This record gives sequence, structure tokens and C-alpha cells, in this order.
Amino acid sequence: MKLATLKTGTRDGKLIVVSRDLEHAVAASEIAPTLQAALDDWSAKAPRLAQLSALLEDGRAADAFEFDPNRCHAPLPRAYQWADGSAYVNHVELVRRARGAEMPPSFWTDPLMYQGGSDSFIGPRDPILCASEDWGIDLEAEVAVVTDDVPMGIEAGRAGERIRLIMLANDVSLRNLIPGELAKGFGFFQGKPATAFSPVAVTPDELGGAWAGGRVHRPVTVHLNGSLFGQPDAGQDMTFDFPQLIAHAARTRFLAAGTIVGSGTISNLDRSRGSACLAEKRTLEVLETGKASTPFLRFGDRVRIEMLDADGASIFGAIDQEVQRYQPPR
Amino acid sequence: MKLATLKTGTRDGKLIVVSRDLEHAVAASEIAPTLQAALDDWSAKAPRLAQLSALLEDGRAADAFEFDPNRCHAPLPRAYQWADGSAYVNHVELVRRARGAEMPPSFWTDPLMYQGGSDSFIGPRDPILCASEDWGIDLEAEVAVVTDDVPMGIEAGRAGERIRLIMLANDVSLRNLIPGELAKGFGFFQGKPATAFSPVAVTPDELGGAWAGGRVHRPVTVHLNGSLFGQPDAGQDMTFDFPQLIAHAARTRFLAAGTIVGSGTISNLDRSRGSACLAEKRTLEVLETGKASTPFLRFGDRVRIEMLDADGASIFGAIDQEVQRYQPPR
Repeated sequence: MKLATLKTGTRDGKLIVVSRDLEHAVAASEIAPTLQAALDDWSAKAPRLAQLSALLEDGRAADAFEFDPNRCHAPLPRAYQWADGSAYVNHVELVRRARGAEMPPSFWTDPLMYQGGSDSFIGPRDPILCASEDWGIDLEAEVAVVTDDVPMGIEAGRAGERIRLIMLANDVSLRNLIPGELAKGFGFFQGKPATAFSPVAVTPDELGGAWAGGRVHRPVTVHLNGSLFGQPDAGQDMTFDFPQLIAHAARTRFLAAGTIVGSGTISNLDRSRGSACLAEKRTLEVLETGKASTPFLRFGDRVRIEMLDADGASIFGAIDQEVQRYQPPR
Repeated sequence: MKLATLKTGTRDGKLIVVSRDLEHAVAASEIAPTLQAALDDWSAKAPRLAQLSALLEDGRAADAFEFDPNRCHAPLPRAYQWADGSAYVNHVELVRRARGAEMPPSFWTDPLMYQGGSDSFIGPRDPILCASEDWGIDLEAEVAVVTDDVPMGIEAGRAGERIRLIMLANDVSLRNLIPGELAKGFGFFQGKPATAFSPVAVTPDELGGAWAGGRVHRPVTVHLNGSLFGQPDAGQDMTFDFPQLIAHAARTRFLAAGTIVGSGTISNLDRSRGSACLAEKRTLEVLETGKASTPFLRFGDRVRIEMLDADGASIFGAIDQEVQRYQPPR
């Protein structure tokens, strides 16, 4: 089934079930008011949501309405955890090489992961608000999964069972703030403003054969101001699969239901696929010509991130955002 | 007023108002079922909670009962954000000196902060569960504040107005996992397991004159297995006050109501006050004798963290936890 959250003026919005073709939707309020409420009691709620989804597919759901991704929050407008991996290790190696840094061999066996802010995500059509273009505004197209409760110390071989939903993310990054921040040693904070997610989160079965080996085997398409920027395959070159990322996150603590685990920027060794973030393209330019020519995002730029199934239909709906200037309070 | 959360078998527990002397309490369910619900609508809920608090102080609250911190969750059993500073910069400098590393001068002007996991905190009397003593289990006694919504880009001069509650934290750390983790460059993850908080969170006015300049001017007392380990003053040597920490966290993003911002391990230049974490004591030992003699926590050890007012009464109740072995699932 496919789930989304409508904006209602409340902090958590309203849970809706969306049809497979993203054309229609129906409120799930009688089952669970919000997506977090459904995740909090998934074993009881999921079968009822699946029933409602079946009614909707059959055209028999009462009060069904036209689905409009412009009215969507992130599926979880706020979450209790956003743990973002960096599972496409060749991307990490590339970025390091460009700045002349060796990558430790352990990076191929021990996942990189950072703790992201999860208190206020931005919706799939919400603007990316930023006070300054000088911060080096970048997109990062990723796949993310939402877990149920995960026991501390779970083995990767069992962690896949805890995945409830899959969605796309735009992990907005402020590249020019990151080097100074990482040099301080405590990881990302200001360099990672609010993340956006796709209009729709789907259960793994919706992906059919494209969900295999704990990875999503479809290209993510990234458009910048209407032009195709990259379409790397999320299933290719993903060094750590989602169960491994979940097990890494849970090594020393329990993960609560509604935890979001991200893949990190999707990146393929096959450079003809293009990139899923500007930083990677700039890195390739530096390695090829000694100089980055692709600029970071500017106010008014539009970013579109989507994933199509084998028949060309959008799986999650599109993230489609404009970068806008933010005026801080006096 | 003083607020706490009773364990009820649900994820978020039940909000209660606690008497100033921590002797009695009354359910606040008719005002807000949970502390997060109160924070989500603070301007409407706070006056009603204050009325209930006044009734309780007057002995006129219906259905008041004896307050038992052993039945408490963390005030927020799960939160949407836990942003932990490291505001006692002389502590940071000391730890660096012990390992022969220079501290950049910018550390005195630009706060250190990491994004902590907030999906499943542990209650004030819950055990610290850990799979291995070899991970170097440590306590960190801190002060933490809970904010209302905070606009992105807020100036420090206005950020203090957004503080709603104050509490104590035990930011449990796994010292032997941290160096390898920080070397990877993405900050803490496995090195910071679940954090514990004091039984009670209080509004700033409850501190009277001890809340001044965006700092809490009282010693935190740390006991280890019944012996006093340290009692550094939280108001001394705190390089960045809470409004500065909040402004740092909000520089590139909005903070949602219920965001917890921590001070970092409390530490005084006056070494006669002792320490609020084992790592600092071990560092001092290394600097003095070349060798750390204080061990990290072992299974069965008890940690008690408390703050007394000028009359010797506990302000927040005590965090009192035993370290216990955790058996991961097969």
C-alpha cells in the first residue's frame, strides 16, 4: 500500500491511503489519525490500512478524493529519529580523492552514518528556505526506509524484517558550512538543514522485484530547473544494504517505531548515469579539469527527485522544490 | 511549575504536575495527555497547568497522589530533537590536551554541538543497558532545556524567550567507541546510546535567582556507588549560555516545540569540585600521573545525578541508575 500525510494545519497532518497510480486517496482517520500513530501500533493498523487500500484500488472506498501531492507534508512531518547513512562508498571515496584525502579501508566494511535533525521536515513541494546562497546549497537524492521498533544489537540478517515503509529523500546540505563543522569533530549540524521527503511512502511489496537484497533496484531521476541532472540506480554500488544500515544504527541502542534510515546520496560508478548531488558533479569536474564549474543551488532554482517503475509510473510521487531566500527574524 | 511523565505502558506515558517539594502529584490528563502535547500548544496549556500546580500546592487538587520517581519516564520519553552542546569549553580543552591535540581558538566563540538520538530515552531510574563493559561506559551529568518553536536564524538575544522547561540529563557515552567513530568524520552515533533525564522538568521560574544569564547557577551532584564523585557548579565556566546554544542550533533550520538542548558535561576549572564524567577524571589522572586509574562503569555500578536548591531540597529529583548487562537477540 501507499501512504501519505495531508497538511491540515496541525503538526502531524492527516494520514491518507493513496492509490497505486497516485490518482486517488482516502482518509485513514478511523484507523490511525497520523502515520506515526499507525507505526506505533503497526501490527494492528497495517492490516486495516491494507483493507482500505484494497477498497480504494477497487473504486469502492467511500469519500475517496483526487490525490494532490501539493497538499502533502512529508509522510512523517516530524519523526523521532532520522539516521542517515552514506552507503554508496565510491561516492565517499571520490569526494575524498578530490580533496587529496585517503579513505580508510574500514569505510568498505563499517557504515558511515550521521544523526540528522528530525523535528521539522519539509514537504515534497515546500520551498528550501535558506538565508544565504553563500552556504553552498545542495540537494542529495536518497532512498530512505521507515522502521518498526528495532531491538538493540539486532543482527543485519534480521533487521530487514523491521522495515515498514520506503520513500525518497532530499537531504539538503549546505556544502560550504560542512568542512568547518566536520573539522570540529562532532559531525553535522548547521550543514544539514531540514530534509524533504517524497509525497508517498510505500510498503516494500509495492516495489515488487525492484526491492531485493535490502536495496531498491530502480534509478532515481534528478532534474535541475527542468533538465535531467542524473539518474543513478539506487540498487547499484550500494555497499551497505538497508538491513546493514539498521543494524549499525541499533548496535548500542533500541530504535523506536518511525525511525527513518537513509541511504546517503545515490551514486553509481558508471559516470554516464550522472549524479544525485551537485557536490559529486563538482568533484568530478575538479578531478577532470582542476576546477568545479557547476554552481551550487541559487534562489529560484528548482529540484525534482523521482523514481519511476519499469512501466514509467511514479512510485513515490515527485519531490519538487524551489530554493527560496529566507529572511531571519530581527 | 514542575512536570513529569508517569509510565503507563504507552510510548509517551501520562503528564502529571508535581509539587514543589516532589512529594505529591496530580494527573494533568484533562489539560494535556502528554508533555509533548502540552509543548505543542504551550501558550494555551501552560496557564492551565499553572492553575493545577497552584491547586496542588494548596492541597486542593482532587485525586492528588504520592509522587514516586521510580514510576517516571523521562519527562519526554521520546522527543523530536536532542541537540547536545559542549558548553564547558575548559573541559574540551582539557580532554584535548591529554591526548596532545591543540584546541582551535574558535572553540571559545563557536559552540560545539552534536545531534543526539531522541527516539527512546531512558527514565531516571531505568538501568543503563549495555552489551559490553569494554565499550567504556561513562556518565555525563548535564543541564538541558526544552524549547518551544524557535524560528530559524533567531538571535541569541531572543532565544532565551523560547525556553519552556529545564531538567537534568545523563548523556551516557561509550568512550571506547568514540575515537574510532569521530575519526570517520560524521560525528557520534554508536558512542552515544540512550540518554536519561531527571524525573521532573521545571519551568525556569522554579529556579528563582539560580536561573540567571541563561545558565543554572547551582552545583550538580554526582554520586558513584554512593560516594560523592563531583559537584561542579553548572553556572560556572559555562562558556556558552543556553540562548547561545539554541541560536547555534537554529542557525539554518527551525526548531520544533519539544526540542531538547543540552549543556554538555558540566565542568569547573576549580578541580576541587570534582567531575561530572569519568572521562574528565581519567584525563586529569593522565595529566598528573601519566596513567588513568579510575575505571569506566561496570555492570552493577550505580550513578546518581541530582541538583539541590540553596535549602538542600532536590529541584528535579534524582537520576539514579544501575549499569546492567544487555543480552542482544540471537
